[in-house]
Amino acid sequence: MFTITELSTGRINRIVTEALAFANGKTAKIEGEVFCSNLFFEDSTRTKTSFDIAERKLGLQVVPFDASNSSVNKGESLYDTVKTIESLGVNLVVIRDKKDRYFDELKNIKIPIINGGDGTGNHPSQCMLDLMTIYQEFGKFEGLKVGIVGDVKHSRVANSNSEALRRLGAKVYFSGPEQWFDEGALINGTYLSVDELIAEVDVLMLLRIQHERHDAKMSFSASEYHRKYGLTKEREKAMKKDAIIMHPAPINRGVEIDTDLVECERSRVFKQMQNGVFARMAILKEALEKEGYTFK
Amino acid sequence: MFTITELSTGRINRIVTEALAFANGKTAKIEGEVFCSNLFFEDSTRTKTSFDIAERKLGLQVVPFDASNSSVNKGESLYDTVKTIESLGVNLVVIRDKKDRYFDELKNIKIPIINGGDGTGNHPSQCMLDLMTIYQEFGKFEGLKVGIVGDVKHSRVANSNSEALRRLGAKVYFSGPEQWFDEGALINGTYLSVDELIAEVDVLMLLRIQHERHDAKMSFSASEYHRKYGLTKEREKAMKKDAIIMHPAPINRGVEIDTDLVECERSRVFKQMQNGVFARMAILKEALEKEGYTFK
Amino acid sequence: MFTITELSTGRINRIVTEALAFANGKTAKIEGEVFCSNLFFEDSTRTKTSFDIAERKLGLQVVPFDASNSSVNKGESLYDTVKTIESLGVNLVVIRDKKDRYFDELKNIKIPIINGGDGTGNHPSQCMLDLMTIYQEFGKFEGLKVGIVGDVKHSRVANSNSEALRRLGAKVYFSGPEQWFDEGALINGTYLSVDELIAEVDVLMLLRIQHERHDAKMSFSASEYHRKYGLTKEREKAMKKDAIIMHPAPINRGVEIDTDLVECERSRVFKQMQNGVFARMAILKEALEKEGYTFK
Repeated sequence: MFTITELSTGRINRIVTEALAFANGKTAKIEGEVFCSNLFFEDSTRTKTSFDIAERKLGLQVVPFDASNSSVNKGESLYDTVKTIESLGVNLVVIRDKKDRYFDELKNIKIPIINGGDGTGNHPSQCMLDLMTIYQEFGKFEGLKVGIVGDVKHSRVANSNSEALRRLGAKVYFSGPEQWFDEGALINGTYLSVDELIAEVDVLMLLRIQHERHDAKMSFSASEYHRKYGLTKEREKAMKKDAIIMHPAPINRGVEIDTDLVECERSRVFKQMQNGVFARMAILKEALEKEGYTFK
Repeated sequence: MFTITELSTGRINRIVTEALAFANGKTAKIEGEVFCSNLFFEDSTRTKTSFDIAERKLGLQVVPFDASNSSVNKGESLYDTVKTIESLGVNLVVIRDKKDRYFDELKNIKIPIINGGDGTGNHPSQCMLDLMTIYQEFGKFEGLKVGIVGDVKHSRVANSNSEALRRLGAKVYFSGPEQWFDEGALINGTYLSVDELIAEVDVLMLLRIQHERHDAKMSFSASEYHRKYGLTKEREKAMKKDAIIMHPAPINRGVEIDTDLVECERSRVFKQMQNGVFARMAILKEALEKEGYTFK
Repeated sequence: MFTITELSTGRINRIVTEALAFANGKTAKIEGEVFCSNLFFEDSTRTKTSFDIAERKLGLQVVPFDASNSSVNKGESLYDTVKTIESLGVNLVVIRDKKDRYFDELKNIKIPIINGGDGTGNHPSQCMLDLMTIYQEFGKFEGLKVGIVGDVKHSRVANSNSEALRRLGAKVYFSGPEQWFDEGALINGTYLSVDELIAEVDVLMLLRIQHERHDAKMSFSASEYHRKYGLTKEREKAMKKDAIIMHPAPINRGVEIDTDLVECERSRVFKQMQNGVFARMAILKEALEKEGYTFK
């Protein structure tokens, strides 16, 4: 699974349903000895550990891979590295890489590849866990109003989520600094001011300020961002009665969101992480079943 | 378990007794699927690997965590990192951090946290293995004379051990460069010259020169330290007949101790490491049983 | 297992035979709880992951060890690190180190040590997988002509393989830049020009240009190396009908070999990696059986 675009709505619904079943206590253990490996060429706590735990819960053997000590340091290409891992007998890999659509180079790899995030492009497993979290809350997507605030242009979360939500019948709104919007970024939703957006939506998705992806210095400080676009205590009070707050994390406390709101009643931030393991179990199981593996 | 201070003498005795049972061949496997993770934000071979093996011997699933590739690099706080690990379904964590009393920030974490060492503060699992090693040798603590030589002020081993030993009825002596002593450091024992101390004690605990914790350049060289405060071949001959040598390691050979004495008959240096796995099994088992987990 | 020199031809044949059995589907699981650890003080994807998977297939518990976060950073010696790992209850270690014959310092270690590569010296597990790959193809070693091209002087692969092949009755030829040859390097074979060698051999082993081991700047560029000594499309056409291409990898595409030939019909490059897991299973099993462990 590489992108949301390749997934039919039916398939999205099946994965979300399976993920919800895992959240409700369903278990599944793979039959036979099956090896997987998580090839993360970019820092990550949440996504890598989440996949790791999901894999262990499914009974897979997780073969460690440390990008910083690997032959990539000797100049080996991504293709040769993944082909190596495949030749060694690993049966599935999860990959995260800084490069957009890195998977286009991997067409000759026979084992399933799960995209753990590519550059500013796609992050389908995050999307599945976000959808699952929304569905848990509202029991539907149709007609929901979802606001995404922040660096929409550089965010793979915004890319994946806005497309999926629009296709599932939700209405998507964006907000944030205007310099982070352009034609392409708005394809799946409408731009609103932060305060208009916050008063309107059922789901408020805050994006992380990704300092590491901004080439030029930002034209505003962290506290200025918070004041202009962040979820302040005042703005939270303007939210609709049952509206929820989401954030893919890691959070910059006091920037995207007031630190006291991170664990407030509306916040689903840590619920999202919890769901991430179940969403990844569903994604992994689907990929493995397609290869003929069975679970008990 | 964070500090020795919080442990009653009864509880210390129970843990040491259980550790000795593991050393004598007792086994215990946890029931059900239980995940743990070792979050080490400071270099360590011994302690991290020792916990890792102890966890596996108890039947836990060890989820890898690499601080250097984690979101801590994106500025995430310790609390948010641990809260994340908890949300992902990890059932127990062991933490080592450079910061004294890092655990004070972690009050809202619900899963058990085992302290694998905090700054210059506490190192309770090292203390348990040291107590266990002493008990194996002498069958008691009451009345024993224990000398601790080195950088008492910056050593979490000295802090934890001197407190525990005093409370268990041993008499503690300190020695080493005077600049490393102050009022606080001597609360649990008495200062002696190195040669007086060595002639007096049943247990000689040498501390590691922690170059990495000394801000200013030391006022003496390694060979000067060895001559003035180290365990030379001559000093070893002045030790009491059944006295033993301990060192938390890693050893600076030729500094704290003559290289030929590291594996001499009196040395328990590698015995301590062996015991470390059993002491950590006892600590982990106690923490998990308190949460309702059972072992077979 | 440290060097090829210490292995009798009988023992080499037994290991290769066992490795071939594993490649043909034989399985073996160790009885009891046995711990191993891979101590790699030099970058590696292939060898480390290959040992890791081999260990798991044999049912061993693999204890993670990260050299870059270990106490080696605090100046601990290799001996003390390995002695520590042994004391912690690890039952077998695989070691790779930059230093030639690092294992000479480890005579007091009681647990089996498998050499995962030492400096420019030995790489016996690579040798076993190469022998196995050749045997799979030709069913014999006697009378085969094997050409090794590249930096023979700095290559532990060339060292190990040429010795073993000569002893098994194959004829070994070398080629590559003359500055990389001296008396010692040619002890097990004869120097030929690249084009003479390619027309002559049944097995063409290309060595990696090890930029990281060359102190002085190379006197030729990558493309110059390719033109003078590399396997170009033209040279490949001059190979004998059933001759095969081998490379220990990681490959510098377009240097040692034209990028289009890496996965050509004659190439056994990824087959070698696949065989690596089976060869290592055979090596580990032999070492553990010698210690009295049993497999089912």
